Amino acid sequence: MKLGIDIGGTKTAAVAIGADGELSDLVSLPTGFGAPEVVSTALQVVSRMSELAGVHVSSFSSIGIGIPGAVDSSTGRVEHAVNLGLEGLDLGPRLSDELGVIVRIENDVKAAALGAHHLLGVADGITAHSMAYLNLGTGLAAGIVLDGELLRGGHGVAGEIGHIPVDPAGVVCGCGQRGCLETLASGSAIARMWPTEHPLPARELFDLAAAGDARALEVREHFLRGAASAVRLLALTTDVDDIVIGGGLAALGEPLLLGIRRILNEWAGKSPFLASTDLAERVQVIPFGFPAAAVGAALVGEPSWQNS
Amino acid sequence: MKLGIDIGGTKTAAVAIGADGELSDLVSLPTGFGAPEVVSTALQVVSRMSELAGVHVSSFSSIGIGIPGAVDSSTGRVEHAVNLGLEGLDLGPRLSDELGVIVRIENDVKAAALGAHHLLGVADGITAHSMAYLNLGTGLAAGIVLDGELLRGGHGVAGEIGHIPVDPAGVVCGCGQRGCLETLASGSAIARMWPTEHPLPARELFDLAAAGDARALEVREHFLRGAASAVRLLALTTDVDDIVIGGGLAALGEPLLLGIRRILNEWAGKSPFLASTDLAERVQVIPFGFPAAAVGAALVGEPSWQNS
Repeated sequence: MKLGIDIGGTKTAAVAIGADGELSDLVSLPTGFGAPEVVSTALQVVSRMSELAGVHVSSFSSIGIGIPGAVDSSTGRVEHAVNLGLEGLDLGPRLSDELGVIVRIENDVKAAALGAHHLLGVADGITAHSMAYLNLGTGLAAGIVLDGELLRGGHGVAGEIGHIPVDPAGVVCGCGQRGCLETLASGSAIARMWPTEHPLPARELFDLAAAGDARALEVREHFLRGAASAVRLLALTTDVDDIVIGGGLAALGEPLLLGIRRILNEWAGKSPFLASTDLAERVQVIPFGFPAAAVGAALVGEPSWQNS
Repeated sequence: MKLGIDIGGTKTAAVAIGADGELSDLVSLPTGFGAPEVVSTALQVVSRMSELAGVHVSSFSSIGIGIPGAVDSSTGRVEHAVNLGLEGLDLGPRLSDELGVIVRIENDVKAAALGAHHLLGVADGITAHSMAYLNLGTGLAAGIVLDGELLRGGHGVAGEIGHIPVDPAGVVCGCGQRGCLETLASGSAIARMWPTEHPLPARELFDLAAAGDARALEVREHFLRGAASAVRLLALTTDVDDIVIGGGLAALGEPLLLGIRRILNEWAGKSPFLASTDLAERVQVIPFGFPAAAVGAALVGEPSWQNS
């Protein structure tokens, strides 16, 4: 049985995958802030999972963790996880020592890409899809899986398409550049373009747009064009078969998917080249509630520091 | 001995690679127009190479061909090679039958990517680079090699970054979209922005800009920003180690490379995120005269239609 843990800014969620591929119930705890608390939350969630499964921790054949920030999966170190209060932490070796089980660490978006890839494989029985996972959360980033293998890159920026500028006249991004994809299609973009007291700004935006509010329609269109641009960019660079949208904004569901498809079809109507790529048919939104990062974390490969 | 052939719009060039990796002299013939003439030119160049090497054609362990257009390397068929007068031709099977030797077909930019990858490997002894080859010719396209393997994609558009829009206020592209990378950094972009009777418009543009001509400086800057944008896009999507610029415009050499590096450094100065990617150090221009597409064609993998 493999254990996958998704350490997020507010909660730490875990799921077990049996030898038959079956998923256990999801266990979730609030994430502590700072290195000792993050480690302690992870240990608690492992302990809870072993109780629920009625097995000792050592019965987990492996434990994988998805976490935001700059992750070196070969050393198990995570850096710059600002929302978790982590400047630098050797999380993999630390948890491995505590638990006596291999603990693998991966960036949360890359882990979620593996989780989405797993879901595609379960759906159609093909285990070596080429696909991109487009994460629309507070920021925008992608995880790319080619023939079943996660593209890690050599400089920590594989899939960092959120910081590719697509409009020289756009607003300045937090990264210092102008008109980045993240300034168009992300939670932070919606917060900027649609200031509100509503607890779910994107939901309010889409609801009001659906009701015909002119300003909401305009902002939603800007957002959808950004998301569709990200889909097009991923397809014309990597030519993956599927682009699966996940992240917090994926909870928008059908209206998000239909909006992106409408724009891709509009573009295809003006460009025979783009029409030939069937983009609208290659994009989908991950099913609501599927714990992609936790499932993917359980599936990340063996790190080299375990072999040394 | 492997034989590689680059079928271009004006000439067909061939090179042989010995078992020790050594390259033969390049042989070049004018390319005929239309299917029978393209086939006949290819057969002539093979015959010339076998004479020069003093061996029978059957002594070539394989023959590879790089050719523009939509190439299905698994069937050896090429389509839409407009500049060659080819609507559709089963070039691989046809030449294999004529020559009695396996003939592999690949898109010319993808073949050149393999050639550039080979050159990097010769330079530093590493044979599994992750790199992108950015072709600045009449159009703009890339070939991506990950851990030594060419990224082919499932829909024929891997590396087709020339048709990713990066400016909503840009000019309309031949593909029907607006502000595509190809409208900024390609031979066709220079032809539009710098109308001239000079036989080498890009050379004239760069020479006049170097001499301080205000209009030339402006157009060159526009072009260089487009090329630097393509480099950034490739790096932030695939995170390859090296981006090697080739194609006809690579003949501009040092002024092209230094111009692109200057802009990447300027951007890095405004963005700590971009600065962390060391982009300026990862870009290079292929050495003048290196026959990347012919060398790469000799190295393309075995097609599946040979095994059936």
